[in-house]
Amino acid sequence: MKELLTGLDVVDDADVLDSLSHDDAEWAPYGKAVAAVRPRTTEDVRRVVAACADRKIPIVPRGAGTGLSGGANAVDGAMILDLSKMNRIVEIDAENMTATAQPGVVNDDLKKAVAEHGLWYPPDPASAPWSTIGGNVATNAGGLCCLKYGVTRDYVLGMEVVVGGPAGDYGTVVRLGRRTTKGVSGYDLAGLFTGSEGTFGVITEITVRLRPARREAPRTVVGAFGSVVAAGEAVAAITRAGLLPAALELLDRTCLRAVEDWKHLGLEADAAALLLAQLDTPGLAGDEEATAVAEVFRAAGAMWAEQSTDEIEAEALFAARRLAYPALERLGPVLTEDICVPRSRVPEMLASIEATAARHGITIATIAHAGDGNLHPLILAPSGDDEARRAAQAAFEDMLTAAIAMGGTVTGEHGVGLLKREGMRQELSAGVLAMQVAVKQTLDPLDLFNPGKVIG
Amino acid sequence: MKELLTGLDVVDDADVLDSLSHDDAEWAPYGKAVAAVRPRTTEDVRRVVAACADRKIPIVPRGAGTGLSGGANAVDGAMILDLSKMNRIVEIDAENMTATAQPGVVNDDLKKAVAEHGLWYPPDPASAPWSTIGGNVATNAGGLCCLKYGVTRDYVLGMEVVVGGPAGDYGTVVRLGRRTTKGVSGYDLAGLFTGSEGTFGVITEITVRLRPARREAPRTVVGAFGSVVAAGEAVAAITRAGLLPAALELLDRTCLRAVEDWKHLGLEADAAALLLAQLDTPGLAGDEEATAVAEVFRAAGAMWAEQSTDEIEAEALFAARRLAYPALERLGPVLTEDICVPRSRVPEMLASIEATAARHGITIATIAHAGDGNLHPLILAPSGDDEARRAAQAAFEDMLTAAIAMGGTVTGEHGVGLLKREGMRQELSAGVLAMQVAVKQTLDPLDLFNPGKVIG
Repeated sequence: MKELLTGLDVVDDADVLDSLSHDDAEWAPYGKAVAAVRPRTTEDVRRVVAACADRKIPIVPRGAGTGLSGGANAVDGAMILDLSKMNRIVEIDAENMTATAQPGVVNDDLKKAVAEHGLWYPPDPASAPWSTIGGNVATNAGGLCCLKYGVTRDYVLGMEVVVGGPAGDYGTVVRLGRRTTKGVSGYDLAGLFTGSEGTFGVITEITVRLRPARREAPRTVVGAFGSVVAAGEAVAAITRAGLLPAALELLDRTCLRAVEDWKHLGLEADAAALLLAQLDTPGLAGDEEATAVAEVFRAAGAMWAEQSTDEIEAEALFAARRLAYPALERLGPVLTEDICVPRSRVPEMLASIEATAARHGITIATIAHAGDGNLHPLILAPSGDDEARRAAQAAFEDMLTAAIAMGGTVTGEHGVGLLKREGMRQELSAGVLAMQVAVKQTLDPLDLFNPGKVIG
Repeated sequence: MKELLTGLDVVDDADVLDSLSHDDAEWAPYGKAVAAVRPRTTEDVRRVVAACADRKIPIVPRGAGTGLSGGANAVDGAMILDLSKMNRIVEIDAENMTATAQPGVVNDDLKKAVAEHGLWYPPDPASAPWSTIGGNVATNAGGLCCLKYGVTRDYVLGMEVVVGGPAGDYGTVVRLGRRTTKGVSGYDLAGLFTGSEGTFGVITEITVRLRPARREAPRTVVGAFGSVVAAGEAVAAITRAGLLPAALELLDRTCLRAVEDWKHLGLEADAAALLLAQLDTPGLAGDEEATAVAEVFRAAGAMWAEQSTDEIEAEALFAARRLAYPALERLGPVLTEDICVPRSRVPEMLASIEATAARHGITIATIAHAGDGNLHPLILAPSGDDEARRAAQAAFEDMLTAAIAMGGTVTGEHGVGLLKREGMRQELSAGVLAMQVAVKQTLDPLDLFNPGKVIG
């Protein structure tokens, strides 16, 4: 193997290899990779893919490894393709409001670079300070501002990918999609690759659309609620009132306390749940919307609700939201849910989560992109406690079943990876699953690209 | 055949059948269908698809037939599936801002129905008063407000489709996508079917996301320019200034005169081109944006530019935009282009269109979703004049080549259908074309769904 990768940055140190063999989904199993390689160019990727295909070695691409479904986990005998060194921003085309980047560019780095041109790349997964654009595209990552601005998919115009199968030998480089704002020349393969979790090929370059930067800081409205279900009722009421915040996030008491104990941000940790709304309509209209949101919160039974007039406080609140996951991870292994239900069912789903926790005698902390109906109940289970682990697994499955029963999905934004394969089979019909398998077999007939993920 | 379709609304009158055998692309050839059927339910569609598959009869689905690429044109021996009677709005879920409709619902009818709930379905192809949601989804239709609000694809959450192939026998009914705002459970097949022009199956129900209705009428800014290229420069300058109108449309003198001669709207027809911008940011911020747009127009050399204070006048201008295509059709057969180039290349593409018209000695009228870089040069060629027809065809091909050379695409929103198949082959690499063919063969192994369109 090694002689074929001459001149490439090959990792074979056992500890480094192990750390590159899995993502941040602590509950997902991972296998033993043969090696990892850190390509710098598309040509490097092409060489590795061709060499692996010759030897039928599975290829597992990865970015920063912040995934939460095991989508970047190694299978036995795999070659890990660590794309984090392909971190060059190729072009910022301010005239056309697009940016082209290698997959290893960190989300926040892209945001900062385009901001210098008065532009904005909206997708903002909580992992944005660490996660890469390649990983974001592979998982069709969501985030906080999806409510108003959509998910990664809505920003992907085109990409360069190294594929095999119908396009040619494994190691063929193709460009999918386009650079223009619109385009329907052929099937939307760039869209199909977005969210395919590396199972169709390796993304080596991505062109995204941008928006003009926001001209003023968004307003933040905070509401404190006596129960998470009451907070859920307020979320449903916001939609009913025709209000469209840029973000509408929920943090329950367990999350707030975990962040406060760690970072001492001075957060109100008495409420059962906080709702954080961000309104970015400019000018007076934005002020009116902020007032309306606070009124809806109060009408829905908030203990208090107010617009944060202090920008530092507002930032601390959203920082708390972003830090909730790592703060909980400090307390022990976390099993992360990622269900999404119709917004009107948010209160019911939150009640179901509480009932599930009580039924299994476990702690479930909930953070949520509540305005999207996308909830992240985080199941805490102490290491080494087999019974707690079984209870956690049972709770995990109960919540997937409940979400499906409410017309929801088992994964809103984290992807299927390894953890949601069973849930996906429960959610989709046999016919749709067969279509999925057929598309995978067509585009990757040797099953070399991230095998066992999504399908399998 | 007929006995198998007992109880269905079968059309076999030769004249009606002929009228159902093609769309609005006058230049696209069409074959002789065996019959047309007008299903009312998914079960009707299922029966027809199964019966056709038994006899290897190709199935050509159609809505209102307003397509401009021949995507709904019959092939010889085809069964036409006219879905215009499947025109029921199944559900408007105001709480979750979604609507579910049968494919034959007219775009404007859906808009009106959801408006009664304070909601808005943004996609607005110029054909919106006639074209159907099914056709809009099949072609991933664009429109005027794509610039700020995206295309049909951005609103499709899920769909019911009648398919064959991997999902089961032809006539299998599956649901793709979801009803939630976010979701990544498996490959994005709903996205793949959007824009696939009926070549993977027949859409029988569609769930779209909605937005809250706009709270105030948008502002309209009009600029008159001494040349189309100068208008193009103004379009590029708008993007550079970080302004994001809801729509930014261009009409050249030929279009304006054709509409004026027909409808007598009192349009200014002296300018070489008009730009129409619509700004819908609410409140004072919207007023400021309208002022800024008018200033950019003036700085780019407009003869005059002003905000329309008269709502009736503003509506007349946008009505003129929508009527431009039918107004030109009154003058003779129209060969419609649908190129899309990066916005910075709009002036260059407009100059290239003028040079093409001069070179071939023909008239090309241009309407454009200029802010998107999506241009519709309309080639006028008198019927029965073979030389003019050859010149028109040559000009058509020249413009496709020019658009590709500028980093553009051969179809921004009308679809490949029959007219853009050559252009698509010129635009996409051999590898990507092979992937497209492979996906089609996988999902429709008998090549029964709208054969010869897109691929082929």
